Amino acid sequence: MRCRHLSKIIGILIIFLGFAMIFPILCSLVYKDGSLLSLLISMGITVVSGAVLYIAPGEASIDYISQKEGMAIVAVSWTCIGFFGALPFYLGGACPAFVDAFFESVSGFTTTGSSIMTDIEGITKSILLWRSLIQWLGGMGIIVLSLAILPFLGVGGMQLFKAEVPSPVPDKLSPRLTDSAKILWLVYISISMAEVLLLLFGGMDLYDSICHTLTTMPTGGFSTKNSSIAHYDSAYIDYVILIFMVLAGINFSLHYQMLRGKTLIFWRDSECRFFLLLCIGLTLAVSFDIYGTVYDTLGEAFRYASFQVVSIITTTGYGTSDYEQWPGFSQVIIFLCMFIGASAGSTGGGMKCVRIMVAFKYCSREVFTLIHPSSVSQVKMNGNVVPGHVLRSIMGFLTLYVAIFVICSMAVAAMGLDMVTAFTSVASCLGNIGPGFGDVGPTENFASIPYGAKWLLSWCMLLGRLEIYTVIILLAPEFWKK
Amino acid sequence: MRCRHLSKIIGILIIFLGFAMIFPILCSLVYKDGSLLSLLISMGITVVSGAVLYIAPGEASIDYISQKEGMAIVAVSWTCIGFFGALPFYLGGACPAFVDAFFESVSGFTTTGSSIMTDIEGITKSILLWRSLIQWLGGMGIIVLSLAILPFLGVGGMQLFKAEVPSPVPDKLSPRLTDSAKILWLVYISISMAEVLLLLFGGMDLYDSICHTLTTMPTGGFSTKNSSIAHYDSAYIDYVILIFMVLAGINFSLHYQMLRGKTLIFWRDSECRFFLLLCIGLTLAVSFDIYGTVYDTLGEAFRYASFQVVSIITTTGYGTSDYEQWPGFSQVIIFLCMFIGASAGSTGGGMKCVRIMVAFKYCSREVFTLIHPSSVSQVKMNGNVVPGHVLRSIMGFLTLYVAIFVICSMAVAAMGLDMVTAFTSVASCLGNIGPGFGDVGPTENFASIPYGAKWLLSWCMLLGRLEIYTVIILLAPEFWKK
Repeated sequence: MRCRHLSKIIGILIIFLGFAMIFPILCSLVYKDGSLLSLLISMGITVVSGAVLYIAPGEASIDYISQKEGMAIVAVSWTCIGFFGALPFYLGGACPAFVDAFFESVSGFTTTGSSIMTDIEGITKSILLWRSLIQWLGGMGIIVLSLAILPFLGVGGMQLFKAEVPSPVPDKLSPRLTDSAKILWLVYISISMAEVLLLLFGGMDLYDSICHTLTTMPTGGFSTKNSSIAHYDSAYIDYVILIFMVLAGINFSLHYQMLRGKTLIFWRDSECRFFLLLCIGLTLAVSFDIYGTVYDTLGEAFRYASFQVVSIITTTGYGTSDYEQWPGFSQVIIFLCMFIGASAGSTGGGMKCVRIMVAFKYCSREVFTLIHPSSVSQVKMNGNVVPGHVLRSIMGFLTLYVAIFVICSMAVAAMGLDMVTAFTSVASCLGNIGPGFGDVGPTENFASIPYGAKWLLSWCMLLGRLEIYTVIILLAPEFWKK
Repeated sequence: MRCRHLSKIIGILIIFLGFAMIFPILCSLVYKDGSLLSLLISMGITVVSGAVLYIAPGEASIDYISQKEGMAIVAVSWTCIGFFGALPFYLGGACPAFVDAFFESVSGFTTTGSSIMTDIEGITKSILLWRSLIQWLGGMGIIVLSLAILPFLGVGGMQLFKAEVPSPVPDKLSPRLTDSAKILWLVYISISMAEVLLLLFGGMDLYDSICHTLTTMPTGGFSTKNSSIAHYDSAYIDYVILIFMVLAGINFSLHYQMLRGKTLIFWRDSECRFFLLLCIGLTLAVSFDIYGTVYDTLGEAFRYASFQVVSIITTTGYGTSDYEQWPGFSQVIIFLCMFIGASAGSTGGGMKCVRIMVAFKYCSREVFTLIHPSSVSQVKMNGNVVPGHVLRSIMGFLTLYVAIFVICSMAVAAMGLDMVTAFTSVASCLGNIGPGFGDVGPTENFASIPYGAKWLLSWCMLLGRLEIYTVIILLAPEFWKK
């Protein structure tokens, strides 16, 4: 590990983050909401800290980054970004303690959307814009964005890209990495602009349209309203946001192919098909369950069921209905959606559909082998054989996911959470969802959680966003050996 | 599949089960409890049904059984055994509906210990003896017992043995199968006799001592008292039963080796060491959690914590304390114990310690590979490399276990159970534990569960007892192809 050397890259990213604070500063100038000074101080601290890291002595040229170094850079960068991103919340007075601000910031960048703010509408507009913006930056990946804009990072940047956008079956959009990063961000920006326009058309004001778009597209889930999307009580807005949550839950390379004319790609890609069928199937199951018990008309039941199922399975976390009041079956489905998650290569979290599919095929193969002991069968996805090392990596990921869920649930329970809250808060943070059940249900938030649990849950969010390996590797003693 | 041919074997097993009803019949004669007639009728129906299957036309000689056929025989036999074992409960009037009797019977044979009986002390002694006896028979395996006693089944019996006592890393006690079966049963009987004596010494009467032994050794958990072991309120009895639960949770081949003079084998065997350390570690964690909050002295806290942790992790399910009144941390531990389970080759259920260990090593290997991409590392247990196909089978098992847990939880929730009851009832039945949380908590039972859920949970118990593959294989369309 060439720590001195690599800290330069982290420095650049932090400077980059500091400059992103221009947007809330402009917002504060427009609305004169009184947060200007705290934002300027935050930006100053961030840019200066990044600059110190950058100009500190060390080799200047970065010609090669190993996989191990790439992971270390990304894991450390994201922790730093969480730290500096928290400054506006802390200095702006939106969060009472720094751990709260850090939790809120990490929840933003990782697109989780769990909040410790009890009165969101009492926070200034510029701070809320920052809160939305960090989700948008975190969704597609702040390092990917840097790669697109700062070409000198491109050298060795593949390792950074792979660590920040881990995908079990990597897509090659373009042979050149900076081109891939540009394509992803262009698609992301285009779809975001479409959502802003459609929300404006539905009567939402410009500020809220932008903020909600900034948190829909990364499947983040922060809202500018205390009662989340339920505030608008508009079927049009519900369905617009629903559609964009679904789009955000689809692999972005498919969007690119779609835009290039492959119109049936959503159906031809087996993961996307599985994801869409899952959304439809679970929506129907929940609709019939809550129809007659919670809602009187099938239309209403469908509207709330579809929104809530899609909001959780895409790991967005917006709310239009209190699912803790729903029957047991619907609650079980909502809880399970927290684990499934969206597609690989999307902005969603969770285990990801492709891994669930591979695990299912893995089990089928085992059963097949018992019936035909002498046969050799392979696991296929989209017609291609999944190589052995990818299969092992996926099964290892799923096992680690469950193991971390279990161990962290025990840990937060030891800090005083009840069983349901412990299990669902960890599931929610690890899957980058937002709400859970019990004390962290859709009508509550994470304010009342003990400080220790907030630190641990922040770490869970990072684990979930960077897909475990990038973060967990830092805990391996082997990693630190020369 | 040579169905005609194989039904003979099932016939023999059913006849065998019928003759086991001699014991409750003798008990009924001794206590004159009025259940004699219903027991005689049950025995008659069972023996005659078995005989009809046996004498039906078909080839007489059974010279070879394939793995596939072995699994089919065991899965079908266990279902039949559940059916015929239910007759005394149904005809004796202990269960109002046949599904209740079937649930109770399967819960017995699979050593689950979940009950639908609300007033156990109101049931006749002979029926309760049957209820305990079927746990004892199911614990070591009724087919294994048949193999030990009926040598003509030995031909091709290896496939039956492997299907009934599935073990990720099979132990070879003796090159001859019937000898292995005899050794296992002799060890089982010896330890059982020791427990009866120790319980008698503690002041429990002979009948209760025998019944509780018959349900401790198979990690079953049926009691003859409404309040389970809490009824005796005796530290001596608690600790005696605790020790025998631990013994029952250890691989029986280790007991055999211990008896042959290998005194340190419990510590040398890595799974056994893991299991014992887990029991100690979790007991201490729970003790400190409930000390001061539920119990005033550390001694009391340790007594109840150790009993309950061991009762659940060995999948016995006895109760001395209502763990639903414990703090969240202890509840989370109890719930997780339901999944961990005891050692492979023991009478306990759950995922089994060895599989948890292998999964952990599997994940470690993946992380190691990320750090040293060009290295080749293997998973080892007890110093031996775990072969690839065993590793795949274990990872497949764990994934299937979780998948079945998830799907069955959804299904029972759809039948009207609330979320906590749905998840924990399935976890409890799949792990062959006994109690769960919520409506199936330690102070409640399964009586109020809808009929559909009782059928499904009975199937879960069979899945758990036969370690999934043996049962799930029957659902594969591939299995039924010529």
